[in-house]
Amino acid sequence: MKPQAGAEDIERVCEKIERLGFRAHPMPGAQRTAIGITGNPGPIEPAEFEGLPGVAEAIRVSKPYKLVSREVKSEDSLIRVGIESAGSPRSPIGETASAALAVGDRQSSIVNAEAAPGFIVGGRTLAIIAGPCAIESQEQALAAAASVKKAGARLFRGGAFKPRTSPYSFQGLGKEGLEILAEVRRATGLLIVTETIDPENCDLVEEYADVLQVGARNMQNFSLLKRVGRSRKPVLLKRGMSATLEEFLMAAEYVLSEGNYNVILCERGVRTFADHTRNTLDLSVIPAVKGLSHLPILVDPSHGTGKRDKVIPLARAAIAVGADGLIVEVHPQPERALSDGYQSLSPEEFEILMGEITAIAGVIGRRIAI
Amino acid sequence: MKPQAGAEDIERVCEKIERLGFRAHPMPGAQRTAIGITGNPGPIEPAEFEGLPGVAEAIRVSKPYKLVSREVKSEDSLIRVGIESAGSPRSPIGETASAALAVGDRQSSIVNAEAAPGFIVGGRTLAIIAGPCAIESQEQALAAAASVKKAGARLFRGGAFKPRTSPYSFQGLGKEGLEILAEVRRATGLLIVTETIDPENCDLVEEYADVLQVGARNMQNFSLLKRVGRSRKPVLLKRGMSATLEEFLMAAEYVLSEGNYNVILCERGVRTFADHTRNTLDLSVIPAVKGLSHLPILVDPSHGTGKRDKVIPLARAAIAVGADGLIVEVHPQPERALSDGYQSLSPEEFEILMGEITAIAGVIGRRIAI
Amino acid sequence: MKPQAGAEDIERVCEKIERLGFRAHPMPGAQRTAIGITGNPGPIEPAEFEGLPGVAEAIRVSKPYKLVSREVKSEDSLIRVGIESAGSPRSPIGETASAALAVGDRQSSIVNAEAAPGFIVGGRTLAIIAGPCAIESQEQALAAAASVKKAGARLFRGGAFKPRTSPYSFQGLGKEGLEILAEVRRATGLLIVTETIDPENCDLVEEYADVLQVGARNMQNFSLLKRVGRSRKPVLLKRGMSATLEEFLMAAEYVLSEGNYNVILCERGVRTFADHTRNTLDLSVIPAVKGLSHLPILVDPSHGTGKRDKVIPLARAAIAVGADGLIVEVHPQPERALSDGYQSLSPEEFEILMGEITAIAGVIGRRIAI
Amino acid sequence: MKPQAGAEDIERVCEKIERLGFRAHPMPGAQRTAIGITGNPGPIEPAEFEGLPGVAEAIRVSKPYKLVSREVKSEDSLIRVGIESAGSPRSPIGETASAALAVGDRQSSIVNAEAAPGFIVGGRTLAIIAGPCAIESQEQALAAAASVKKAGARLFRGGAFKPRTSPYSFQGLGKEGLEILAEVRRATGLLIVTETIDPENCDLVEEYADVLQVGARNMQNFSLLKRVGRSRKPVLLKRGMSATLEEFLMAAEYVLSEGNYNVILCERGVRTFADHTRNTLDLSVIPAVKGLSHLPILVDPSHGTGKRDKVIPLARAAIAVGADGLIVEVHPQPERALSDGYQSLSPEEFEILMGEITAIAGVIGRRIAI
Repeated sequence: MKPQAGAEDIERVCEKIERLGFRAHPMPGAQRTAIGITGNPGPIEPAEFEGLPGVAEAIRVSKPYKLVSREVKSEDSLIRVGIESAGSPRSPIGETASAALAVGDRQSSIVNAEAAPGFIVGGRTLAIIAGPCAIESQEQALAAAASVKKAGARLFRGGAFKPRTSPYSFQGLGKEGLEILAEVRRATGLLIVTETIDPENCDLVEEYADVLQVGARNMQNFSLLKRVGRSRKPVLLKRGMSATLEEFLMAAEYVLSEGNYNVILCERGVRTFADHTRNTLDLSVIPAVKGLSHLPILVDPSHGTGKRDKVIPLARAAIAVGADGLIVEVHPQPERALSDGYQSLSPEEFEILMGEITAIAGVIGRRIAI
Repeated sequence: MKPQAGAEDIERVCEKIERLGFRAHPMPGAQRTAIGITGNPGPIEPAEFEGLPGVAEAIRVSKPYKLVSREVKSEDSLIRVGIESAGSPRSPIGETASAALAVGDRQSSIVNAEAAPGFIVGGRTLAIIAGPCAIESQEQALAAAASVKKAGARLFRGGAFKPRTSPYSFQGLGKEGLEILAEVRRATGLLIVTETIDPENCDLVEEYADVLQVGARNMQNFSLLKRVGRSRKPVLLKRGMSATLEEFLMAAEYVLSEGNYNVILCERGVRTFADHTRNTLDLSVIPAVKGLSHLPILVDPSHGTGKRDKVIPLARAAIAVGADGLIVEVHPQPERALSDGYQSLSPEEFEILMGEITAIAGVIGRRIAI
Repeated sequence: MKPQAGAEDIERVCEKIERLGFRAHPMPGAQRTAIGITGNPGPIEPAEFEGLPGVAEAIRVSKPYKLVSREVKSEDSLIRVGIESAGSPRSPIGETASAALAVGDRQSSIVNAEAAPGFIVGGRTLAIIAGPCAIESQEQALAAAASVKKAGARLFRGGAFKPRTSPYSFQGLGKEGLEILAEVRRATGLLIVTETIDPENCDLVEEYADVLQVGARNMQNFSLLKRVGRSRKPVLLKRGMSATLEEFLMAAEYVLSEGNYNVILCERGVRTFADHTRNTLDLSVIPAVKGLSHLPILVDPSHGTGKRDKVIPLARAAIAVGADGLIVEVHPQPERALSDGYQSLSPEEFEILMGEITAIAGVIGRRIAI
Repeated sequence: MKPQAGAEDIERVCEKIERLGFRAHPMPGAQRTAIGITGNPGPIEPAEFEGLPGVAEAIRVSKPYKLVSREVKSEDSLIRVGIESAGSPRSPIGETASAALAVGDRQSSIVNAEAAPGFIVGGRTLAIIAGPCAIESQEQALAAAASVKKAGARLFRGGAFKPRTSPYSFQGLGKEGLEILAEVRRATGLLIVTETIDPENCDLVEEYADVLQVGARNMQNFSLLKRVGRSRKPVLLKRGMSATLEEFLMAAEYVLSEGNYNVILCERGVRTFADHTRNTLDLSVIPAVKGLSHLPILVDPSHGTGKRDKVIPLARAAIAVGADGLIVEVHPQPERALSDGYQSLSPEEFEILMGEITAIAGVIGRRIAI
């Protein structure tokens, strides 16, 4: 759509798409709104739409992924976390776009993420998500939250439902964990990122979470992808252990195709023969995603290396390569963690990390929320 | 337990285990029954059990997987398909064991799988599962079933729910597909193997299927593993695209730990740098599994190579290496298949395959059902 | 060339190619001789050659590899080992072709490889190369040779120069090892396969060896490939640890492009994430090579698995998939081997292997030399 | 040795080691000299040496690699390029150590690499090696050299001997290429890094090069490693395509064990299933090497990604993760390059790269030569 297209222009195009029996996907951007079409069995005549008011051009998408593609939407997507209108279908388009413009636009130099009602992922301000692998107790969670907030994180991670390789490992506190997370948000103002593990479980998790995390092992759990695609909460989608870039983007496409355009991608290391790290962090996927898709992408240097002493160097590299932020495991007492302690940072180490990435961010025109 | 232990001895041991707050897993074998214990936070004193009537010995399992391990049960498991008592908890133990002994024991030379009410996977007779990637119509399914039955297959595969990389690809006929599968069974007597894609979907699929297939992408979908673990139907568990042997066995352990001991493993190729096949079929995993676990393992040379002209040679190799059978894609008209046509055999090719593997089976002491 | 083309026809075509400034590569087959052209900067007009006497057709090769391609030579190559004319440039073409026809043709049913002056690799009779990883002493070598000969091997392997990951590991006996190998040949009649590690070293090794082995780590040591390409001895070229099929064939192309058309390929496992074997044996490469190239291909189940208990099952699979033979590590006392003992078979195990593969070979129309 | 140990103390220890029949490896560092012992069949009694004058302590090395290990030498090695005494055995130890201290020590704040007679790799100043994949002509080489020098590179790369996957691809200008490189050095003062491809070829290349490059495909060409280990020129050793960290360090150990302690490691991407880049750049290996070894390590973002548009982001990441420098392909006209044009930067792009990494270097306490 043209930048000056109004809500009624957008609505008119969407109606026409649906009258033809297809599905319309309006995706507001900072400058203008793109409208994706899916469900069409073959090519559509561009002239069908180019004459309508407010329409800038109709583009045929040549990739297997459509809605996630820059061919559909050339501007970076800004994903609003903790702001109720996020993910809502169609109505608040104008508002969302202008709010995003005011709050998170990269060109804007007066952004104050702290003052915003939520947080924008994908703008100039890097998203730093930190916290323990698993929520173990309210005490542990609040201690972790206090320390990561002090160091500058705005989002808190912590698993209530933990997919574990062994059925005999700690599987998370479940609903009790979610309630602790809600308490963390109440007490600290941090936004909550937590994992959902199956469609039914999502009903519960979306009541508590600000961001629904889909883990690497579930990247091609298509039932779960469709379910979070029907949620109004943003989704953090981790790359599968052996997912190609195309498969990764297709997994995101599943979510968008159901109407939830608020997807944050996350590189977390892939499986290779290399044995000096638990996974091989593939930082080249960041510029590759940026070239093909408008979605933001974070890096998880904790799972991406699986070794505490590699987390800080790789976090620096992730910011330098152009990631939109990090998700990092921080535990008040890593050596006592019930899971993943060997890759969790202590609060002191996390402060060092924040100091170093703040400096790196500065030289590439990004910044940490203040 | 000792070979001569009776049902009441087994029951007594199970009760004691549960009184201690743990979980008992009686697993009948051809010669004797093993009882696994899970849920114990640490080691248990063997003497607690070794004095009970019928107990042969108490073994501490040193592997992360317990119930799937040969340390718990040294005999090969025989998985009964299409026989109602399969998977039932505890009560029919004696009966199952003796039935298995009569029908599927490798030492027995008078087996006639054709005459049995169902089919035993893991015995001397190889399990050949064949059929189209996806059920497309009743006509297509019946044509495929007739041809694979004629060539000697006893089990029929066909997807009603298809996990597809793209949300815009054919996702299967759903419930209609299941009904067609039921019609195939009624018309041909073939047993039905079909995929279930999430816990809720499993409620429906288990009404129709004789074997619940869990696909490679869901190998670590722990919610689904737990759900099929509570089913009475045998489970065909495919190895994940980048699953280590330990992760593969741990995924099976999830199913067994819920009480369903009827798991059939399946190697279907892993993801590597090699680009002359879609996946790299890892046949060395067959003897590796045989060394560590009592569960049977099949090979899928269709997905394992992704190329029609490699299916027959690799099927021969799979039988030669010691697999307990095959799962093969066969389509009446491969060039018209809605999915995976490039790797599906024609009925004529499948007949050639059956001829060749019958010869190979003969020289290694296995055979095809007659 | 046409089947009835004589030596002078072939010579005439070769001369014309070289007059044009290109390089001619006559490659005799069982039915007819192919002549490859390399060194041409662009396409050549087929009509330049199609009018010459004896020329059947001129084909433009569409692959990056030319001389190894079936497009140049559609018949399987038969590689003569231990027969002096092997590898000689041009002159003995007619003779080689007819000798090969008599001795190694797959269609011929009266072959007696034992009586032949050497051994043909790539014909109906499988090539079984066996012996210790490294030559340690004359005693060890003769003991190993006696046992593998007794079990039916016709070719003996043993390293005199050992490429080892550590500079502090046993690097082989060097020239003394070669002399022991010569003694093994004299005493047993077994043909000798041994590794050459650099161009200079090749001068020495080719004096002793019947087949020059190029190890996996040297698959892209192009200086060595060119050097063995100028040898009159056949070359056993192992696939590199992470070589694609195309890279593997291009490495062989290096050897052929220097005029040595007697290359035997060998799959020995590739490097993947899988950790239950030392390498992942990629048996699918056998039919893939057979489709693209006329060169024979063996399998090394010893390095391919790195574990003694996997060698026999994978050897069976290799024969079943269609390999032209095996190269297997056998040591009189594996537990005392100076290298690779954990993957070497004992003489007793090797006898079992030979028995099992003889049976498999029988059902697929191949056989072991008697 | 103690920091105050003199040349005669070091000599005395070396003599004693050699009298015992072992090999002594004196490795001077900025603060003190370490002396490695190799050739010992088993452990040596520390007391044999701890009483000698100047000996600080005798440490048993627990890793398979010894001389490259931080257990032997805890300080970072500074590799002097273009300074004649580099690599000389034993005699100039004191001098080398003090020169290195003066010129390249990280703590020193008055370093002016430009004014130094050569360049120190591994100190505070990052080593930037840039130039075309292959030397194509004097004109091309001088144009490339002028542009990379202007942008701040101090070392020039360019292949005279090119290992190419195809025997029919451009294999480099050979000796003529080396002479052009000598002319580049004369004309620009840039130090020359070029590849040597086999032991014999090394005789020629070391006459011209300031640094001998060993390519990824030759990382386990042990004959070549031993040959460059006897050279007085520093060695740039690239990680093999599927080399583990241990194999990589063992390859360096080969060079050091022959007496050449001037090894610069280089990560250039490993082979994985990922297909959005030609190789997967494994930046986690940088901190891993830094933890285990005293040798410097560079990153090659050109081969590491194989795509021009990924080179700059990954170069930034490489510096941020802690690499000691970069080796980058720059061609005056990338679209006309005879090899690797798709991954070569234009001079303008290289200037951008230099600007960005200068900024990153600044925030982590490193810098670019001025």
